[in-house]
Amino acid sequence: MGSVFGRFFKIATWGESHGGGVGAVIEGCPPLIPITREEIQVELDRRRPGQSSITTQRQEADQVEILSGLSDGLTTGAPLAFLVRNKDARSKDYDEMKDLYRPSHADYTYTKKFGIRTWQGGGRSSARETIGRVAAGAVAQKILKLWAGTEIVAYVETVQDIRAEIDKSTVSRTQVEANPVRCPDPEKAQLMLDRISEVRKEGDSVGGLLGFVVRGVPAGLGNPVFDRLEADLAKAMLSLPATKGFEIGSGFEGTLLTGSQHNDPFYMDGETVRTRTNRSGGVQGGISNGEDLYGRIAFKPTATINKEQDTVNTQGEEVKLSAKGRHDPCVLPRAVPMVEAMAALVLIDHLLALRAQCGDSFLDEPSS
Amino acid sequence: MGSVFGRFFKIATWGESHGGGVGAVIEGCPPLIPITREEIQVELDRRRPGQSSITTQRQEADQVEILSGLSDGLTTGAPLAFLVRNKDARSKDYDEMKDLYRPSHADYTYTKKFGIRTWQGGGRSSARETIGRVAAGAVAQKILKLWAGTEIVAYVETVQDIRAEIDKSTVSRTQVEANPVRCPDPEKAQLMLDRISEVRKEGDSVGGLLGFVVRGVPAGLGNPVFDRLEADLAKAMLSLPATKGFEIGSGFEGTLLTGSQHNDPFYMDGETVRTRTNRSGGVQGGISNGEDLYGRIAFKPTATINKEQDTVNTQGEEVKLSAKGRHDPCVLPRAVPMVEAMAALVLIDHLLALRAQCGDSFLDEPSS
Amino acid sequence: MGSVFGRFFKIATWGESHGGGVGAVIEGCPPLIPITREEIQVELDRRRPGQSSITTQRQEADQVEILSGLSDGLTTGAPLAFLVRNKDARSKDYDEMKDLYRPSHADYTYTKKFGIRTWQGGGRSSARETIGRVAAGAVAQKILKLWAGTEIVAYVETVQDIRAEIDKSTVSRTQVEANPVRCPDPEKAQLMLDRISEVRKEGDSVGGLLGFVVRGVPAGLGNPVFDRLEADLAKAMLSLPATKGFEIGSGFEGTLLTGSQHNDPFYMDGETVRTRTNRSGGVQGGISNGEDLYGRIAFKPTATINKEQDTVNTQGEEVKLSAKGRHDPCVLPRAVPMVEAMAALVLIDHLLALRAQCGDSFLDEPSS
Amino acid sequence: MGSVFGRFFKIATWGESHGGGVGAVIEGCPPLIPITREEIQVELDRRRPGQSSITTQRQEADQVEILSGLSDGLTTGAPLAFLVRNKDARSKDYDEMKDLYRPSHADYTYTKKFGIRTWQGGGRSSARETIGRVAAGAVAQKILKLWAGTEIVAYVETVQDIRAEIDKSTVSRTQVEANPVRCPDPEKAQLMLDRISEVRKEGDSVGGLLGFVVRGVPAGLGNPVFDRLEADLAKAMLSLPATKGFEIGSGFEGTLLTGSQHNDPFYMDGETVRTRTNRSGGVQGGISNGEDLYGRIAFKPTATINKEQDTVNTQGEEVKLSAKGRHDPCVLPRAVPMVEAMAALVLIDHLLALRAQCGDSFLDEPSS
Repeated sequence: MGSVFGRFFKIATWGESHGGGVGAVIEGCPPLIPITREEIQVELDRRRPGQSSITTQRQEADQVEILSGLSDGLTTGAPLAFLVRNKDARSKDYDEMKDLYRPSHADYTYTKKFGIRTWQGGGRSSARETIGRVAAGAVAQKILKLWAGTEIVAYVETVQDIRAEIDKSTVSRTQVEANPVRCPDPEKAQLMLDRISEVRKEGDSVGGLLGFVVRGVPAGLGNPVFDRLEADLAKAMLSLPATKGFEIGSGFEGTLLTGSQHNDPFYMDGETVRTRTNRSGGVQGGISNGEDLYGRIAFKPTATINKEQDTVNTQGEEVKLSAKGRHDPCVLPRAVPMVEAMAALVLIDHLLALRAQCGDSFLDEPSS
Repeated sequence: MGSVFGRFFKIATWGESHGGGVGAVIEGCPPLIPITREEIQVELDRRRPGQSSITTQRQEADQVEILSGLSDGLTTGAPLAFLVRNKDARSKDYDEMKDLYRPSHADYTYTKKFGIRTWQGGGRSSARETIGRVAAGAVAQKILKLWAGTEIVAYVETVQDIRAEIDKSTVSRTQVEANPVRCPDPEKAQLMLDRISEVRKEGDSVGGLLGFVVRGVPAGLGNPVFDRLEADLAKAMLSLPATKGFEIGSGFEGTLLTGSQHNDPFYMDGETVRTRTNRSGGVQGGISNGEDLYGRIAFKPTATINKEQDTVNTQGEEVKLSAKGRHDPCVLPRAVPMVEAMAALVLIDHLLALRAQCGDSFLDEPSS
Repeated sequence: MGSVFGRFFKIATWGESHGGGVGAVIEGCPPLIPITREEIQVELDRRRPGQSSITTQRQEADQVEILSGLSDGLTTGAPLAFLVRNKDARSKDYDEMKDLYRPSHADYTYTKKFGIRTWQGGGRSSARETIGRVAAGAVAQKILKLWAGTEIVAYVETVQDIRAEIDKSTVSRTQVEANPVRCPDPEKAQLMLDRISEVRKEGDSVGGLLGFVVRGVPAGLGNPVFDRLEADLAKAMLSLPATKGFEIGSGFEGTLLTGSQHNDPFYMDGETVRTRTNRSGGVQGGISNGEDLYGRIAFKPTATINKEQDTVNTQGEEVKLSAKGRHDPCVLPRAVPMVEAMAALVLIDHLLALRAQCGDSFLDEPSS
Repeated sequence: MGSVFGRFFKIATWGESHGGGVGAVIEGCPPLIPITREEIQVELDRRRPGQSSITTQRQEADQVEILSGLSDGLTTGAPLAFLVRNKDARSKDYDEMKDLYRPSHADYTYTKKFGIRTWQGGGRSSARETIGRVAAGAVAQKILKLWAGTEIVAYVETVQDIRAEIDKSTVSRTQVEANPVRCPDPEKAQLMLDRISEVRKEGDSVGGLLGFVVRGVPAGLGNPVFDRLEADLAKAMLSLPATKGFEIGSGFEGTLLTGSQHNDPFYMDGETVRTRTNRSGGVQGGISNGEDLYGRIAFKPTATINKEQDTVNTQGEEVKLSAKGRHDPCVLPRAVPMVEAMAALVLIDHLLALRAQCGDSFLDEPSS
């Protein structure tokens, strides 16, 4: 279980790192949306391995095929199915992993739960699974852009203790894509690059924080009580591999303020209700207020390292592991399109939910 | 929408702060579970207002009635329905709020989304809604305890910059209940109490961090991909009012480490696979490994304060607000049973999911 | 499980025939719908026992209380909760049933499944559960009427072999309510009444067919593949107690025709695409085409009879049962509002689904 | 929407008659189930076109590829993805259909709902979509057989007015597969074959009734209230193309009996509670009682015929249609494996639901 996301714009992903391929099905996509294979491919290219010196050298072209749901370049309302074949399956690299549990990986828990696991390259727990999400997210981003002018930008904010300065109101994808770290602060990006290269040589890995901002969010997205917008974003982000934390708006640091410091005063910007500050992060009472939505996600250092580690094997013996698989010394650069995809999937789901319950009058007015 | 939580052990809450009452329905509760009204009431008593000098003075006995689903003190597999009547409805206190939007509250977003809101006391966005969750969570905790010996303890870890020292492996509810702040570090609890009393006098409010630990978690809870245990916990916690962040295990601080520092080495504890450290927070690959589950939730300072604030009214005019409603200067003490309830609801849901897909052999072996 | 219905306009019912009461929660109701307690009560009055000489003499006023979700007579988008207290609990009547399984009732299967049952009056399997459905259905019917002018009429078409002549295009609720059988053919209604009275005296029971027609159905309701409109109607109707069959349009008799006889030719009625015949029953490819929706439901003879029957008890002994509980000799008259409610719940759910995926432009044009 | 079925053993189908292919994803499949490509292929071969003189001459090998979810021939608990490529795409045959609506097809309603349709061969409404269901159903049948010895047999019971005599307690797949009509009464099968050949020559089509029986059903499958076993079966069956009715047990004819005639008396068969008759059709109170489950589905005559018909085109003009596409003069023979698949999908879903709520002790005892 667990491979279905969304209630209205529903996606199901499938596939393992080794085998026939990976993919996704989108259920509930609105009809008449123009979308091309290339628009999806461009997002997959940002996600794929082997893009730069600091990502895994595993080479996968990851060419996507759209199997269904389009007619003359438009969605038809029927399910969209995506397929990406697996190519570079050097499963010999993983032979050693067959009988032992890699520390801080899913090997042990999958085996304990299911009584079986596909041990090559992590099987279902492989980051390769996120291909389906990114493909589906590309469709979601297209609809959000067409309908509401929504723009989602994620970026690397910290690597370990190196913290970038980022202006959330202006940060653009162009800035993010300007360097292989995907950090829009060029100076700090270079420091991060150096740090990643360094730990890589040591066979080690690092983590950090990804930030994201969404501009052009229609007010009214999110639901009272359980399906708050930030709750669904939190779930979406913590469903990504290697994540350990999520915050919206002022987040953890906001706990240091008093209420009178933290509250966002309302004012009128012409006909539009706005807030002078935005510690809420664009969401109040679980529902978007039209201000920019922003937050952060904590990614732990990659669990796969090339240093010797203590572990146990499937026979219950304590053993040493020296992993030699190719891996990313830092997952954050490749996680940027994943975070954007997940944000888009949450937003489109709530946008359809809003239409269902309240109609689509919200589309008549440009979002603030 | 948004008032239903869970896929297997499903709850629906309903009700507003003013009106007929609040309540919840549990769908999918296993049969033959012994549960009494008193076991549920004890949790509601920990949540109710007016318990101490630092909670709102609104007086509500919050006596729960179990309307269905029991026979001779045992659950029957039919829905359990809970009802708590509203009592102390001083809606005059809220007259002023009728026509304006309180900063950092749900007033504006609810109105924008639905075109209407019940303005008395926050209506559906009132923390009173959590009564239904706490009642349902009491049932969930009972089952977890009976079936797996699971024990959930939440506690106040920080209030603003005051940080308690807490030993997660031993912290108990008795320690937590020993003072009105619900902080198990008595010295820091007193400092927190003083701080809360102080801001209260100033008509202001404070926030902080709630920690939680779950001991006796069966291995195998959680699903690959989207319904990871930590993802569902993140959603559950960020669905609580006033929350701005969530972290599991090493969380945000873990991003400062390298992989070789962060990974949890496995070892054998007799027949059981254990980890020497627990930076994972009891969950690997989205699935519990049998170690203690722990994390933190950030609560912002209460939005309701008694200081004058800038805002706008429903006519689009900029106005001043001086709220006089009774409120909590710090929501954290009363949030403790809510966090425990939400954790329990996530765990029981995954426990039933595990039974559905993999059978219930996991109950034969004691959890580590 | 099993007490939740709908994906967008979601209802959860709860309660047993004996105990605190019965009720329902509606999740996802659109805001700004005017609805009164009286509009709901009028439907419950059509469903309640003791209305006429041919329904059970169990007396229950079944007064509904709306606990939440309304503000100034309008829905707010928050859950609507309904409560009807149980009154006339003569559980002594059921003492005999405690230890044995009534033939063709749920007693045995509930016990087998759950290991426990509330034996008084059928517990959760009691027709009293349908109170929640009828209340929720009243809200659904109100919305359908307001938004699309939709009108649902159900009626008794046969009792055993007595078959009424009914003109589906004109049959009205007034005609249906004109006699206690709820058969709009007055002559046949009298024959049915006589038959029911007769079997009642014999302590026996009868079944028959309920027909329904929906006029003013917007085109576009229903989904390809699994959630076809007729599939969801079939499920809805077979979820009612005592049902054994469902057909849409030409149904079982349509299997006697050839394709050229059965197909519904299209023609233009001004600007509107219409069909000359309507063997499809208003639905093609699982989606409404704007023609009248109609079908039939088969209700078995009531399982509760006052004749001696062979059965077994909970100790596995073969015994005789002479039920003395008050019951309906024919469930069809009271099932009329239940069928209307279920039809409305299916239609409103698909109407919100249509809005979610395709927007609400369908509301701009009057349905054919 | 509408392409997802099931709550626990969840399937999503995708694909159109023309395009990249068709397929399905199974979510929630239990691990450690042995399943081969061949076991799935054998069911697809029973469904595929071109098998005999009375099915469509469209030739499709329909070779299935399992893309994920298996390891060493065992399911892993991860999603199973199936792909069948489209081959024989003579879309020229459909040119004529591009601009008009075929009577009693989905052409008009899809266009009305979505504003677009894939007109080649019916697009998403094509019976080709059922490939995904049959593949998933093969897995479901395997699990049911392994865990509970469950056996599902569907068969053609009538073609128009030709009615076969079938002994539900003994009818076998071997008998069903003995002739191209899939009617286990050889004499009537010949009459049916003649009738189908005859209408085919006339360019016309016929319908009929499919019966099914399930032997070896564990008691306890199905839920009170909405998710009754027969309600879910009704939905499943009416989600198949060309269906117009469903009945369980005594069905429509049972409405002619009195309660004393219709009730199924209980008796003891050794330690097992059994019923002497089985008018209930194996389900009481919505839950299986361990007796054989049986019912019937009404299929209308195929809408595609080779006779001239009145219709309208997309410009709103009344026109004549003379379809020349290859088609089945009678869908029933090929619907047999579809009905078996849908029955299996409902049963496995309820079996996992039973495990979730009540544990899997039901597997310890052989079903009656």
